[in-house]
Amino acid sequence: MDEVYREEVYHQAVEWVLEAGRTIRNHMNDPLTIDTKSNANDLVTTMDKDTEAFFASRIKKKYPEHFILSEEGFGDEIRTMAGTVWIIDPIDGTMNFVHQKRNFAISIGIYHDNIGEIGLIYNVMDDILYSAKRGKGAYKGETRLPLLNQDVRFNEAIIGLNHFWLCKNRLVDETIMQQLVRDIRGTRTYGSAALEFAYVAEGILDGYLTLSLSPWDIAAGMVIVNEVGGVTSTIDGDKINMLDKNSVFTCNPQIQQNILEDYVRKARK
Amino acid sequence: MDEVYREEVYHQAVEWVLEAGRTIRNHMNDPLTIDTKSNANDLVTTMDKDTEAFFASRIKKKYPEHFILSEEGFGDEIRTMAGTVWIIDPIDGTMNFVHQKRNFAISIGIYHDNIGEIGLIYNVMDDILYSAKRGKGAYKGETRLPLLNQDVRFNEAIIGLNHFWLCKNRLVDETIMQQLVRDIRGTRTYGSAALEFAYVAEGILDGYLTLSLSPWDIAAGMVIVNEVGGVTSTIDGDKINMLDKNSVFTCNPQIQQNILEDYVRKARK
Repeated sequence: MDEVYREEVYHQAVEWVLEAGRTIRNHMNDPLTIDTKSNANDLVTTMDKDTEAFFASRIKKKYPEHFILSEEGFGDEIRTMAGTVWIIDPIDGTMNFVHQKRNFAISIGIYHDNIGEIGLIYNVMDDILYSAKRGKGAYKGETRLPLLNQDVRFNEAIIGLNHFWLCKNRLVDETIMQQLVRDIRGTRTYGSAALEFAYVAEGILDGYLTLSLSPWDIAAGMVIVNEVGGVTSTIDGDKINMLDKNSVFTCNPQIQQNILEDYVRKARK
Repeated sequence: MDEVYREEVYHQAVEWVLEAGRTIRNHMNDPLTIDTKSNANDLVTTMDKDTEAFFASRIKKKYPEHFILSEEGFGDEIRTMAGTVWIIDPIDGTMNFVHQKRNFAISIGIYHDNIGEIGLIYNVMDDILYSAKRGKGAYKGETRLPLLNQDVRFNEAIIGLNHFWLCKNRLVDETIMQQLVRDIRGTRTYGSAALEFAYVAEGILDGYLTLSLSPWDIAAGMVIVNEVGGVTSTIDGDKINMLDKNSVFTCNPQIQQNILEDYVRKARK
């Protein structure tokens, strides 16, 4: 992607994200229509749909040659990552949105020929934008995020993971994951994959491990984490496939091998 | 406790809490000396000790007849809750303080003859004070918190609990707790008991379940949760003993019996 063009797309995307965020904040106390999707706890609201429709209509008008891969059905049916693809989660952390009215984010990754060029994660209620352009560093608001700490030790790591890792599950032996919890310093669960990626980029989590995420949950986060020297792969250490669901481990590279080799690989079913 | 006197003590306590918070923020980027206590992940810093020393010296000077029960050794050796007792955690969530430089709180409960009269939980970096006086409601900043939602359903509840509940432990059969995780809507882990109590009081968590806490972790939170109609007990449903460690479940009363009877009681060793 040509750098001048990328700069233009970046500024446009930021403008739309901030506008969508203002709209969400202004309607925060409106009555909500809440539906469920894959299961009773997989929530979707009119706000998710309206926000995605806003992005889709703006993108289609201004960039008719771009594609959209998104959560709520306003995107394209794409089978390849060729060209420019906006990967959008209008509200990442819908359960937090519904139950907490905070701790959710707009997540937008813009990829060109399968390379992440732009990442935006907007904590709407705190009005904090995490952003990155490939090769240009990552930012929290106006402040450039430093490279991840090279001195993190495995046994002092704090890892984001949800509680299902420790329950019987189809991917890993939960008893080995329970040992991981005992061997590291701490675990946290925030309920928004996008924000958990942002926290890894900030270095307030050393890693975030998740069983199954869609491209829109991680596309922006991968670009941002990458810009501070973090790494993202499946739990088998493979490259993420942006056209499918993936297990995901994003982390400070100092602890990647430790966790993947000594725990996840042994636990893998 | 006489109401005029309580009002005076409340305002003094708030003033000291805000002053201590300013000091912490001003020294946030100073080099830290970090020690460990009961285990390698039970952290304490010079900031914990200095903050507690600040409160202890102020209280001893202004209220020499009051007692102090606190985490870092500047308090009294008390064997009874008779009289007025300040129960203080200078930094609740020390791991967050060290690793995240946010998401920690000053927690102060003031009890008279074993009755919680005043609760203060101060999210230092966000500059948000949760406060309550017995019988006078709970506040987040200047805003009175509404009574907890009477329509919360068990299967839509979001519960704060740390991951050790789901690992083999001495208190409960972890497999039954894993079933609880599957049966409710969601789980969160924030790493500060005081803030998790505050979140229950706000209604952004419906409950917070914890294996073993000291009085200073919960004293303020109990007063605040109580003022919005929440309930706090041990995991056996017993009254909390303010002079010892306790397992703790604080929650919206709509889900208390469900969780204690259908899960914790069956899981109890």
